Amino acid sequence: MKALKDKIMAHGKALSPKILKVDTFLNHQMDPHLMNDIGKEFAEYFKGRGATKILTIEASGIAMACMTGLHMDLNVIFAKKHEALNLDKDIYTSKVFSHTKNKEYIIKVATKLIDKSDKVLIIDDFLANGLAALGLVEIVKQAGATVVGVGMVIEKAFQRGGKLLRDQGYDVFSLAIVESLEDGKITLAE
Amino acid sequence: MKALKDKIMAHGKALSPKILKVDTFLNHQMDPHLMNDIGKEFAEYFKGRGATKILTIEASGIAMACMTGLHMDLNVIFAKKHEALNLDKDIYTSKVFSHTKNKEYIIKVATKLIDKSDKVLIIDDFLANGLAALGLVEIVKQAGATVVGVGMVIEKAFQRGGKLLRDQGYDVFSLAIVESLEDGKITLAE
Repeated sequence: MKALKDKIMAHGKALSPKILKVDTFLNHQMDPHLMNDIGKEFAEYFKGRGATKILTIEASGIAMACMTGLHMDLNVIFAKKHEALNLDKDIYTSKVFSHTKNKEYIIKVATKLIDKSDKVLIIDDFLANGLAALGLVEIVKQAGATVVGVGMVIEKAFQRGGKLLRDQGYDVFSLAIVESLEDGKITLAE
Repeated sequence: MKALKDKIMAHGKALSPKILKVDTFLNHQMDPHLMNDIGKEFAEYFKGRGATKILTIEASGIAMACMTGLHMDLNVIFAKKHEALNLDKDIYTSKVFSHTKNKEYIIKVATKLIDKSDKVLIIDDFLANGLAALGLVEIVKQAGATVVGVGMVIEKAFQRGGKLLRDQGYDVFSLAIVESLEDGKITLAE
């Protein structure tokens, strides 16, 4: 997706060989027109899969998932990472280790929101080690529902998440693929 | 806002005299068309204030703030509640106590994202005690910037947040105002 790649090259920063910083347009400050275009792109790619719900994870996945839902006429669920008094007692849960935050979360989705008839499209901002995505897949499995695709805004090709998910048969569609962040230089796949 | 009030009456639940549960369409599962309409409503009300940025707080505020940004052509910042390796060292911070989560957070915004020339529109999902909104106001003040308005999706009139903010001179615009949640019954203001 050209607009996204242009933004990454203009405003992204290779903080380390593993960390790409995109906090001025994607995951701290957000450019809503870019988010909308990302939503359109996912909607176009995943149309015709019979998706009934979109599932993402708080917080950075919410904006793009919501825009995708807008263009696909689908409700969007975000898995919760944190405890809250207003969360249902009947929940699906899965453990996810976050490298960015260096801690383990138990992600949670109310059982009433996904059932076995659902066809779920998973959307998130970053695909690195794939742990968040696999946590979401696990929740869909607990519901007895089906994953119809995985849409990622930025995939880091040098980490194993993309391979892990594709080896399990999931159709992973990434809008920008980072090949390397070595020496402070961002290299995107063509 | 009629569509929102209808949704609250049809799908909201008065969990207790203080807690309104709207997790099937607003803050766990989201109806993206409702989010878009909320964004349009805020954009219409706050147009002409010269806003240069929208500020919200993760996670539930993100979707409506992003939709508002789309309709106002403004970038949207979400304050972070949690530590992350990829967050800047130069940050504005403010302490916020969450009654829903029964814990104190230090919310954070990278200093590079707001400066003293900014006119900031604050958007969030719920106005109850006003602590999150006041935390966001505090961050805008630290930046030397101006708050041009506060847009809230649901205000609980029986809690003190709305009065606190209005007494400080802020224009608080709430799309639905809950007057009572007593006896499991939701009463909205006309």
